[in-house]
Amino acid sequence: MTAHKTIKNIALSLPLLTSGAAMAADRPNIIFFLVDDFGWTETSLPFGDEVYPRNKQFHTPNMERLSKMGTMLTNAYACSLSTATRTSLLTGMNSAHSHITSFSSLYKDIVPDAIGGHPGATNPNLDDIFAHPKWNYNALCPVQFDNDTDRATYGLNNTTYATPLPQLLRDSGYHTIHVGKAHWAPAGTPGSNPYNMGFVVNIAGAQNGHPKSYQPEDNFGNIPGQGDYGSVQNMSQYYGSNVHLTDAITREALKAMEHPIKQDIPFFLYFGHYTNHTPIQRDNRFYQKYIDMGLDEGEARYSSMVEGMDVSLGQVLDFLDEKGIADNTVLVFFSDNGGHSVGGEKGGKMHTQNMPLREGKGSVYEGGIRVPMMVVWPGKVAPDTRINTPVCVEDFFPSFCEWAQVENPQTVQERDGVSFVKLVTDGSNYIAQAQKEGKIKNQYEANRYQIPQEVSGIADNRSIISHYPHQLRFEDQDDIDFMSAVRQGDWKLIYRMHTGDLELYNLAQDIEERNNLASKYPKKVKSMAKDLGNSLRKWEAPMPTVRATGNLVPMPDEVISVSKKGKKNKKK
Amino acid sequence: MTAHKTIKNIALSLPLLTSGAAMAADRPNIIFFLVDDFGWTETSLPFGDEVYPRNKQFHTPNMERLSKMGTMLTNAYACSLSTATRTSLLTGMNSAHSHITSFSSLYKDIVPDAIGGHPGATNPNLDDIFAHPKWNYNALCPVQFDNDTDRATYGLNNTTYATPLPQLLRDSGYHTIHVGKAHWAPAGTPGSNPYNMGFVVNIAGAQNGHPKSYQPEDNFGNIPGQGDYGSVQNMSQYYGSNVHLTDAITREALKAMEHPIKQDIPFFLYFGHYTNHTPIQRDNRFYQKYIDMGLDEGEARYSSMVEGMDVSLGQVLDFLDEKGIADNTVLVFFSDNGGHSVGGEKGGKMHTQNMPLREGKGSVYEGGIRVPMMVVWPGKVAPDTRINTPVCVEDFFPSFCEWAQVENPQTVQERDGVSFVKLVTDGSNYIAQAQKEGKIKNQYEANRYQIPQEVSGIADNRSIISHYPHQLRFEDQDDIDFMSAVRQGDWKLIYRMHTGDLELYNLAQDIEERNNLASKYPKKVKSMAKDLGNSLRKWEAPMPTVRATGNLVPMPDEVISVSKKGKKNKKK
Repeated sequence: MTAHKTIKNIALSLPLLTSGAAMAADRPNIIFFLVDDFGWTETSLPFGDEVYPRNKQFHTPNMERLSKMGTMLTNAYACSLSTATRTSLLTGMNSAHSHITSFSSLYKDIVPDAIGGHPGATNPNLDDIFAHPKWNYNALCPVQFDNDTDRATYGLNNTTYATPLPQLLRDSGYHTIHVGKAHWAPAGTPGSNPYNMGFVVNIAGAQNGHPKSYQPEDNFGNIPGQGDYGSVQNMSQYYGSNVHLTDAITREALKAMEHPIKQDIPFFLYFGHYTNHTPIQRDNRFYQKYIDMGLDEGEARYSSMVEGMDVSLGQVLDFLDEKGIADNTVLVFFSDNGGHSVGGEKGGKMHTQNMPLREGKGSVYEGGIRVPMMVVWPGKVAPDTRINTPVCVEDFFPSFCEWAQVENPQTVQERDGVSFVKLVTDGSNYIAQAQKEGKIKNQYEANRYQIPQEVSGIADNRSIISHYPHQLRFEDQDDIDFMSAVRQGDWKLIYRMHTGDLELYNLAQDIEERNNLASKYPKKVKSMAKDLGNSLRKWEAPMPTVRATGNLVPMPDEVISVSKKGKKNKKK
Repeated sequence: MTAHKTIKNIALSLPLLTSGAAMAADRPNIIFFLVDDFGWTETSLPFGDEVYPRNKQFHTPNMERLSKMGTMLTNAYACSLSTATRTSLLTGMNSAHSHITSFSSLYKDIVPDAIGGHPGATNPNLDDIFAHPKWNYNALCPVQFDNDTDRATYGLNNTTYATPLPQLLRDSGYHTIHVGKAHWAPAGTPGSNPYNMGFVVNIAGAQNGHPKSYQPEDNFGNIPGQGDYGSVQNMSQYYGSNVHLTDAITREALKAMEHPIKQDIPFFLYFGHYTNHTPIQRDNRFYQKYIDMGLDEGEARYSSMVEGMDVSLGQVLDFLDEKGIADNTVLVFFSDNGGHSVGGEKGGKMHTQNMPLREGKGSVYEGGIRVPMMVVWPGKVAPDTRINTPVCVEDFFPSFCEWAQVENPQTVQERDGVSFVKLVTDGSNYIAQAQKEGKIKNQYEANRYQIPQEVSGIADNRSIISHYPHQLRFEDQDDIDFMSAVRQGDWKLIYRMHTGDLELYNLAQDIEERNNLASKYPKKVKSMAKDLGNSLRKWEAPMPTVRATGNLVPMPDEVISVSKKGKKNKKK
């Protein structure tokens, strides 16, 4: 039990150290910096082929700094909503496979119909054509249902039983730290507590998908008699101070890294920012600047939140330098879905916030799923590079396992992703070489420069599947509404279940997804629909039911033959 | 940064391992099992000279089991209230020295007058003779006040700046875990968060001195719109289950030990039970049994809470066995003050709950400060023994440092305690030897069998000081009211500030403190009053002010000369 034993064991087995043990010991720290609802263009660091108008509104110098240190993945995909992405990160499963296709509520078994409700919900305000699908609204659960124990009382129905990534990392010797937003499952289920997910340390993570308040004067929601499950925990020392939540959890994240650094133990920091989720509240450190720029109230607030996040990123980078551990730390930057573009709270003009990308959070159009992503790993990932190879959220599980040298991870779930470690190492160096040789003249050209499959380690023709068999009802909103999509190379097929329409876009030529090429390329539509259908069938993906018939909505490849016969009417 | 480096260093320095490093590595795990408001007689394990009627009401087989594994300290003293004890544990300071003489509120700068209020509070419902003393109502703070930083915004006024024990243990390599009640400082100050006290892990600890609810159906207080700062955090997975808070935090405590055990790192678990503090709520697993015994509702609830705590203790012991680490683990059992005996919520007859001890929580009579204590350390502490040498709460700091081999701990505060490690090791073996030789014939005789100073390592004539310069106002209550006490050997002097009375008791003959011997032993009174006065002066201890004059209440040795002239009237 004591360190003494370890030392004795090491002394007795020194010859072995040069093989397996030594290799396993030389493992990088891993920092996963996850921003919430952060759109692909909501940064002064352009991920696109040009600087879009939206990029100009934001001030994110630390993201720019990060991009110089590593590689940008300009075609990176999350799911369209929080819990879907977050559980995919922890399980390595596509959300259509895990059946966690929307976001989980604050409390078990309570699911607002508008976001995907209970299976077969009959609320008349809902869609009158489709009933909601069977899905795992109690989300991710690291404990198996067992009638013989009192665990059944936790409410494990409608959960996905899986082995979470942090548990594998912890069991392999990582000091696993969770700071910030968790949102893997509702209160009343084991998945709501990061301590059940394999984290050694948890600060401020629970069932809530957003904070009740970001403001210290509101005690982050913990005002007696006004609090709810969204009140942020473990932050009591900042109550009544001037420290915004983004700043507060950053301070705690830095503090939490001190111990493993001092103990010389590799750590995994899952740093999940609550920002930029609603409520859209000003970060007083930066707000006035954006008002002075002429932004409306909502946009100024939002931009100040983004800058707060960016400063947090800078503080993490400074900390790594200060501690002398930057060289042995992998940092991955990601967002859990596209920028919020409905509801109005964010200011600006609805449905435009991710332009040129179409739509936002909730949608399977690019605005809902394409997110900013960067990877820094000094000496291994080439600095100041861009990679256009598409990657997706289910790829993170095998990638993090590869970094942590967890070989052949044993999980109860079947996983879907592929590691992007070779892509970000060999791939980024391939790009750096092309830059050196003058084959790529500026950063934007890299967006067009394809990395061969043998270098990237990722098949050119692989499918990236996005599935949202629910609604997200807001006024003037019909692009977040029972849809599936698949991307293959530059091609993207969208299946609109309500109308039975299949849309085909070439993202290399039409990033806005405005020019539907379905009638021009029927064979492509057919093959992609087949591919999407096959995956959804294989995964037994949640699908809505047609109220009139009680039948499941047809798969995308089944709808082709009937699409001319009779399109379904859609309710509005 | 990696474990790799450590291994290399060890390989290079193997010859050194047999000296300092190896010694430092062979350190025990330390489990501090702290129960709340748990009176000295509220257990089926008698700490006194006989089985008192109160002992018979309770069922604590695991405390009995623990007593067989180690030693009972039958004269162990806490402060009379929670935060005073808890901050003393973390600082090694007497509460009269730290100036944290009462319990801290939920929120900074808000102090109910009844429990010690703001200095000079003028609330007319208060005592009309005395005004409250200057004291550190914002309690313990691990951060120094610094006008140059925004730390000042945290509210560091009226705090005691000190280096907390867990920080020293963590910095020496311990994996420090906090589970349960913290209560070191109010929300809005750094001390409210265990992460600031040197804990690597915190589960459920914050500013609150009691849970808003123990019941899972109340979500431990987290019901939207009904919660407050007493709602227990980090427990969301148990909401709506059948798992009582005592059970829930036990499960989390066991889980939290898994990581350091697996990593072969020594750990310090500070396991602070919320129970048996108010609200007095039934533990459904045990409640009916006590009703069936004929107890009233309050007593039955209370007894079920005690049994829940005892089962938790058993689960910890089972866990240590199961993991094979019991032999290298020190377990210390303690309560933060005497049993609650006012207010009525607990049932029974007020002021009798600690009988034969006088009064309860809040009082410096034995009922308020003498608490159950046990120490288990297999192979070092003799099993099934009793030690009657008095120990006190400020002794824990040096003792835990000694166990952890933290030599000459560097702290910003001056500490007051002495280590009891020699007492519980050599002392318990001295008792065991006497038992073997037939000098002690039964467990109760050990209560009378003195361990010589050279064996115990603790001076026979040392003073144990209890200071409560506040009130705790309840009906029919005047023994928790501006008092100080000092114990030396069997003698105890009590100073009642309101009346200027000095009372002298011989605890060996009069554990009930009913036979005041002051007039019989004036010299003893004088010397003990002098001793108490000297300590209070040295520590600049908080003292109330006489409203009429604005003068501080006289010290106990100053009152002797005037006590015949004019006793102050006491308000009732």
